[in-house]
Amino acid sequence: MTATVAIDCMGGDHGPRVTVPAALDFVRLHEDVRVILVGLSDRIRPFVADAADGRVTIRHASEVVDMGESPSLALRNKKDSSIRVAVNLLKQGEADACVSAGNTGALMAISRFVLKMLPGIDRPAICAVLPTLKGQVHVLDLGANVDCAPEHLLQFAIMGASLVSAIEHRDRPTVGLLNIGEEDIKGNDVVKRAAELLWESGLNFVGNVEGDGIYKGDADVIVCDGFVGNVALKTSEGLAQMLATFLRREFTRSPLTKLAALMAMPVVNRFKARVDHRRYNGASLLGLKGIVVKSHGSADSFAFRHALQRAADEARNGVLTRISERIAQQQPFQETA
Amino acid sequence: MTATVAIDCMGGDHGPRVTVPAALDFVRLHEDVRVILVGLSDRIRPFVADAADGRVTIRHASEVVDMGESPSLALRNKKDSSIRVAVNLLKQGEADACVSAGNTGALMAISRFVLKMLPGIDRPAICAVLPTLKGQVHVLDLGANVDCAPEHLLQFAIMGASLVSAIEHRDRPTVGLLNIGEEDIKGNDVVKRAAELLWESGLNFVGNVEGDGIYKGDADVIVCDGFVGNVALKTSEGLAQMLATFLRREFTRSPLTKLAALMAMPVVNRFKARVDHRRYNGASLLGLKGIVVKSHGSADSFAFRHALQRAADEARNGVLTRISERIAQQQPFQETA
Repeated sequence: MTATVAIDCMGGDHGPRVTVPAALDFVRLHEDVRVILVGLSDRIRPFVADAADGRVTIRHASEVVDMGESPSLALRNKKDSSIRVAVNLLKQGEADACVSAGNTGALMAISRFVLKMLPGIDRPAICAVLPTLKGQVHVLDLGANVDCAPEHLLQFAIMGASLVSAIEHRDRPTVGLLNIGEEDIKGNDVVKRAAELLWESGLNFVGNVEGDGIYKGDADVIVCDGFVGNVALKTSEGLAQMLATFLRREFTRSPLTKLAALMAMPVVNRFKARVDHRRYNGASLLGLKGIVVKSHGSADSFAFRHALQRAADEARNGVLTRISERIAQQQPFQETA
Repeated sequence: MTATVAIDCMGGDHGPRVTVPAALDFVRLHEDVRVILVGLSDRIRPFVADAADGRVTIRHASEVVDMGESPSLALRNKKDSSIRVAVNLLKQGEADACVSAGNTGALMAISRFVLKMLPGIDRPAICAVLPTLKGQVHVLDLGANVDCAPEHLLQFAIMGASLVSAIEHRDRPTVGLLNIGEEDIKGNDVVKRAAELLWESGLNFVGNVEGDGIYKGDADVIVCDGFVGNVALKTSEGLAQMLATFLRREFTRSPLTKLAALMAMPVVNRFKARVDHRRYNGASLLGLKGIVVKSHGSADSFAFRHALQRAADEARNGVLTRISERIAQQQPFQETA
């Protein structure tokens, strides 16, 4: 099945200079994908040039949502923004998925307004992939919802498990609840009640997971409210950057340490590749009637390509159908519980 | 001024085997400290032997609180536990500070019951030090309070700023509020209201800080509720462990990478020393009428000694007086606000 990805080429720190070459690479590497490059066509065209084939089209959008712009104003006033046009393509069935490195709040607001929510889902959630000692973990929500009811955490769990089972072709991925202790009595009231719902849900729930359990690989899916998830993710980014900076400082301290760096380079590079956050770029906005993937704003071409890859994977593997089915199964179950 | 530290020698993963040698090292390295080793005396004595001088005394306590024990049961039933006896020594003025690597909940419950809270403080908070790109940061609360009102976050800020100004001899340490965006409109209602209180507080408040700001060194003190703080701390521990494991794996992959490791060893060791979490061991339980420091349960002798050091520093620098004065200043200010 060919997957068509609508790309907001204007978003992110670098705009078309990064998004367009990434899209062309993506098309070159995968025979079964098509891309629609959305944005100011005279900004996009210089990067396409003669590279274009039938699988690359440009769709002009006359406006751009700024990174710091209010999501509600962007939704109301910029009806021809690159984000809006890309999401419209998804809605109209011209694309199977949509990717943007732009303003997260605006992407969320526009997607929710244009696409609407899947039946049975109250709120969208942001789901990202992180590396673990055992492989990888999907964590959600990472910032869409600052206050969550227990039922929302249950919905996040169902969406996350559906995503993993569709993409990784696994029957019953494990689900953990992010908490501050492993015992059921720990945590605030929302988390305690969420644990009860999760035990009753029929999901492969493994109980509470503490912060360090994220990277230990304690579960395939970890759910939390968006405030906690966002802090955990950003804290991780900050720590990784600090450690990288310190390591670089030590290796560049003197001619002798620079020699050591030269010797250690191949090993350090393999290590870097293993934990390269660019390979994990692309957070899914789950719960919408459409596949929307948010790239990190600072993504380079390599990272942006991974976000495109994720969008295409979700489209090919029918993630939306999987989530809808799982939610539908859940409804009668909850009512009888 | 001589500082006397009462040490619960039974707590932690290793008990007296680690805590007692650490205490003796501590006494050897600092002429102006005394220690009271609290616990089962026949378990402690073998490690003291002939090393003891007049600055080391043993105080028998017949009971031990287990790591997994219920704090309320430990408080009610174990009146002669090593934690209880150590905290009592503080209450009675025989010690200036108390350190334990034992059950955090029990240490908190017993300390709160025996010592009581400082006037104007509603709840104790756990405050730890973390390394940053610019130096270090004090973060609180790290797990004592799972649900906080805005006023509690203000109190945490006052306590944290008082601690830093006392220990680091700085007039107006900067204070940040952990949030999911830097704009004032971001976050949940509690955090938004807390920001208002902090802007009015007279503290050197720098506004919202995102998770990555912890390690960037965006503020000297960062406040958050205990759920979020605990997740941020544990997530950091998990990430650091995962990165260390991956790096070790790469360096031990083949004879060639082992040779590279040998070359890079001095550099890597300097790096390790820079971010060694053991140097940051020792979290302060703030808000109590007494200086209580919690060591990580897994602390080795080097780490435990740093917790003892922290306790002695707090005692010598009059942290309690500083907090009380600052809280007293705040009261009229808040009433007129």
